[in-house]
Amino acid sequence: MIYTSDSIEKIVDLFSTLPTIGRKTAQRLSFFLLRQPQEFVEQFANAMIALKHNVKYCSICYNYTESDPCPICSSKKRQTNILCVVEEPNDVMAIEKTGEYFGMYHVLHGTLNPLEGVSPEDLKIRELIQRLDSVEEIILALNPSVEGEVTTQYISKQIKPLNIKVTRIARGLPIGSDLEFADEATITRALEGRVEI
Amino acid sequence: MIYTSDSIEKIVDLFSTLPTIGRKTAQRLSFFLLRQPQEFVEQFANAMIALKHNVKYCSICYNYTESDPCPICSSKKRQTNILCVVEEPNDVMAIEKTGEYFGMYHVLHGTLNPLEGVSPEDLKIRELIQRLDSVEEIILALNPSVEGEVTTQYISKQIKPLNIKVTRIARGLPIGSDLEFADEATITRALEGRVEI
Repeated sequence: MIYTSDSIEKIVDLFSTLPTIGRKTAQRLSFFLLRQPQEFVEQFANAMIALKHNVKYCSICYNYTESDPCPICSSKKRQTNILCVVEEPNDVMAIEKTGEYFGMYHVLHGTLNPLEGVSPEDLKIRELIQRLDSVEEIILALNPSVEGEVTTQYISKQIKPLNIKVTRIARGLPIGSDLEFADEATITRALEGRVEI
Repeated sequence: MIYTSDSIEKIVDLFSTLPTIGRKTAQRLSFFLLRQPQEFVEQFANAMIALKHNVKYCSICYNYTESDPCPICSSKKRQTNILCVVEEPNDVMAIEKTGEYFGMYHVLHGTLNPLEGVSPEDLKIRELIQRLDSVEEIILALNPSVEGEVTTQYISKQIKPLNIKVTRIARGLPIGSDLEFADEATITRALEGRVEI
């Protein structure tokens, strides 16, 4: 016998199923919750249920939203002629945090991965093609991974015949990094993507 | 605007309040929950509420329990003449995991810390003194920190006049570690605590 309470064992098990949370951290989080006031724990539990209940996909960009269309798609202040394609909803947040992009988004919900059986029909690619009417530029902002690369190539092949400008975000040295410690692939891309100053 | 949903923002805020969870991890956990089936999220929320509702302190050892006295205190298989004093309920678990200790426990719920205003009355020290009737040995298993040390000294001074054997767990090199990289204090304790072979 390790735990003297089934309720503790249960919540430790559940925390352990979350990504990045190991058994020790799960235990620490559970004991932390135990020391919090009842109201806090109830608020947390209710927020979880509300999350699952209120959040759905935007029918235009497929980002998470509570209202449909989402605040970005229904905003009057955004440029509707530029569309940024990302893999997941958190990528939208990452770009929004910069405060430098004012176009629209399209969330694919994954990348092409033939080995794991993810084909174009499993992603929101058809939905992307269908919303290109007034779009003048597509920015492909997928992750710099093999799957991201394959998906970037696939989408750009689909869109180029439609006479729409297709760009991709730059790959190169991240700010604050060190050339000495950068890997060969990154340096190669940085050289290829060099710009005149 | 970063989040397109108040529910997501709320749960990210709540996850961020947990120990060891930063904002990025909180976001990752929230999105993970969003991708899970409704039943899983409801089960998680209910387990949290049940945790807070069902778990209380054992009136004998002050460990967390759902039944009072706790399974350890009410077990007929444990030696009641040995008492292991620990700081927190998770320390009970750490010792139980060894499967090598069959005595009873007493949880202090903290350590003496004059600087932060934690005095003997704030810990379960009085409750410890009151349950020593049939106890023959007290094992002090507090953390090897300054506060743990002060508390160990304080309790041993209180108990020694009662003619009860007081021991402490050994301080020395942890298994699998390297003498070369051990700190001076640990090596000093290991030398002091040397045993004949």
